[in-house]
Amino acid sequence: MHSFLKDLIQKNTTKIFFAVLDGVGGVPLNGRTELEAARTPNLDQLARTSACGLHVPVAMGITPGSGPGHLALFGYEPVEWQIGRGVLEALGLDLELKKTDVAIRVNYATREHGVIKDRRAGRIPTHESRKITGRLQEKIQEIDGVRVILAPGMEHRFAAVLRFPDPLPAGSAAIKDTDPQKEGKEPIPVTPLTAEAARVAGVIEKFIDRVADALRDEPVANYILLRGIAQVPDIPNFGDTYGLKALCIAVYPMYRGLARLIGMDAPTVQGDVGDEIDFLKKSFDAYDFFFLHVKKIDSYGEDGNFEGKSSKIEEFDALLPEIMGLNPDVLVITGDHSTPAVLKSHSWHPVPVLLKSPYVLGGTCERFTERECLKGELGTFPSVHLMPLALANAGRLKKFGA
Amino acid sequence: MHSFLKDLIQKNTTKIFFAVLDGVGGVPLNGRTELEAARTPNLDQLARTSACGLHVPVAMGITPGSGPGHLALFGYEPVEWQIGRGVLEALGLDLELKKTDVAIRVNYATREHGVIKDRRAGRIPTHESRKITGRLQEKIQEIDGVRVILAPGMEHRFAAVLRFPDPLPAGSAAIKDTDPQKEGKEPIPVTPLTAEAARVAGVIEKFIDRVADALRDEPVANYILLRGIAQVPDIPNFGDTYGLKALCIAVYPMYRGLARLIGMDAPTVQGDVGDEIDFLKKSFDAYDFFFLHVKKIDSYGEDGNFEGKSSKIEEFDALLPEIMGLNPDVLVITGDHSTPAVLKSHSWHPVPVLLKSPYVLGGTCERFTERECLKGELGTFPSVHLMPLALANAGRLKKFGA
Repeated sequence: MHSFLKDLIQKNTTKIFFAVLDGVGGVPLNGRTELEAARTPNLDQLARTSACGLHVPVAMGITPGSGPGHLALFGYEPVEWQIGRGVLEALGLDLELKKTDVAIRVNYATREHGVIKDRRAGRIPTHESRKITGRLQEKIQEIDGVRVILAPGMEHRFAAVLRFPDPLPAGSAAIKDTDPQKEGKEPIPVTPLTAEAARVAGVIEKFIDRVADALRDEPVANYILLRGIAQVPDIPNFGDTYGLKALCIAVYPMYRGLARLIGMDAPTVQGDVGDEIDFLKKSFDAYDFFFLHVKKIDSYGEDGNFEGKSSKIEEFDALLPEIMGLNPDVLVITGDHSTPAVLKSHSWHPVPVLLKSPYVLGGTCERFTERECLKGELGTFPSVHLMPLALANAGRLKKFGA
Repeated sequence: MHSFLKDLIQKNTTKIFFAVLDGVGGVPLNGRTELEAARTPNLDQLARTSACGLHVPVAMGITPGSGPGHLALFGYEPVEWQIGRGVLEALGLDLELKKTDVAIRVNYATREHGVIKDRRAGRIPTHESRKITGRLQEKIQEIDGVRVILAPGMEHRFAAVLRFPDPLPAGSAAIKDTDPQKEGKEPIPVTPLTAEAARVAGVIEKFIDRVADALRDEPVANYILLRGIAQVPDIPNFGDTYGLKALCIAVYPMYRGLARLIGMDAPTVQGDVGDEIDFLKKSFDAYDFFFLHVKKIDSYGEDGNFEGKSSKIEEFDALLPEIMGLNPDVLVITGDHSTPAVLKSHSWHPVPVLLKSPYVLGGTCERFTERECLKGELGTFPSVHLMPLALANAGRLKKFGA
């Protein structure tokens, strides 16, 4: 798909804007979904003149994580391009990853007489674990020519990145978790699951030994357990594939990290959606593609806070005129997945989407809601088709065949 | 898909009729599309009792050329079955192609001291280039057992077909264009891009030498540049696959050529849609499947003439009772792609379709328009699914599995 599209790309000066309202889709509580319950005059006005529909991130019935949800929006088939847990964890801690990296989720643990007494080292406070991680980083900077980068997380968690000097073959991080999952057991030995993983496994063994040695005198956090050992995927570059200079505007580090992984610029932005939009305005001239991420709608959904989720949707609606004032040639508003408050989690439900450009039918939907979007001209479609559609509406795709 | 379907085919005496209104789909100008603006009482009456929907020729956002658009309508996956530029050019000049053919787009050019001075030989008048091509054809009829067939085109253009005595392996025409794209440069040497292409490249080199020798004394058109060197695809035969005796009725040679490529009968027809329908009436007893091509709707769309496109749709609507009078068992009315007048080109928009047979739901659409077809029972679906649906409605497909 990516090489097929790449051959059809043509230059243009048009701008494409994606507002991703994380987890925006929902299901009804007392008859109305969060979108239906919200007062959204601007979104509704836009929906009336846009191409509307619903998209399916992975497949019917499949609930996507944030990784697959966003990759699908950006045109990457999410089952083909899977991002390991270690990589997502490192991205969420704002680490910048390279294609020669292996990333690992690490827990501090308490070991006594060779067995794990506490898998979470008593959930030591974050400020303490930060200090320990800082000391570890000072002592362990390199193993056999492999750079070691540590990033502190919350409580007993941190991320480790092994930066190899050269590209690793596929399968190099296929290594068992060392976490035995139960207290009172020995940690699982570092076990490569493929021949290709032997090299990385060797480095990880030395890493664990060096850490255990450095933590010898710690009363609680005297050992580590490794989970989600993952290689950075050799994923096609977004900008190269689509011929777009792309900017990610996201307050949460994991979304910036995902964007950087596919080659978007993703400077650190702080604050709320209003701050994101201020940043957008300053950067609008310098880019062709914009991914603006709105997190809080999902957070309230995950909390089961129906009213809160609706009110965050209303907040975005109130800011929408500022985005529209920039006049992007193609404006897409959607989510990366649904997060119904009644489920308190991501869900499999198709995600409402509207696309505004001069080349749509429009006139099929009265509001931007799940049920109204069902009447839209886009129908219900796989999320990976959204990028080609946006490119077409932006005059950035040539004809296929004569 | 083709072998799957072939196993399900059963004989019947039913007749299937496809009216292909080239480029019929559109987008709104002042709120209405070309179909919405047209007065189409007959199409609308038919839509009310037909299965309606919209079909997507290649994929969301992908704008099809005429080749992919028609192949998809006839059930050929258009990305799998790609037709090279040289082949389409030759078909457009009414050349009949065989599966052992390599077809090439050729420009007359002016060469001086080894470099190309004019890539189009001053756009010599068509009547002059016809004379030169005629003389070339007399002098060059065969090279190393390969028949050479030339067909004059407009101005500096013509088509060359190399008819090999035996089938060529795939990849045999993977040869670089010799057109250097800029004046003042030498022509690009004949360069095979695969091992399989060496044989064809050898014949093409001799062809260029023979032509250059024959044109030596021409003042302007003294050389040729080759583009779009393409092999005729070994595409499954339409009639064999579906068990249908198929007739193409098209005024424009390229559509007849495409139809012949898949094994339809496609006699030369001249005139307008009325003449096409007269031809249809005379041939109706002798065939099972009819592809009637209506070109002018697309032409007005390409010109950006919204009113003209609407009026051509109205013209077809007025003729529709004559087709219905023949009482085909399955009547399909659709386009091969959309050509919105506001875009002045083919586009990616789904194409309205109606299918009339005794076995449809009906009663979902008030008119034959993009927005009304959205309400139809067929939904929005890949164009390649239309042929199986037509066969099913014609009682020509057995049950799959027990």
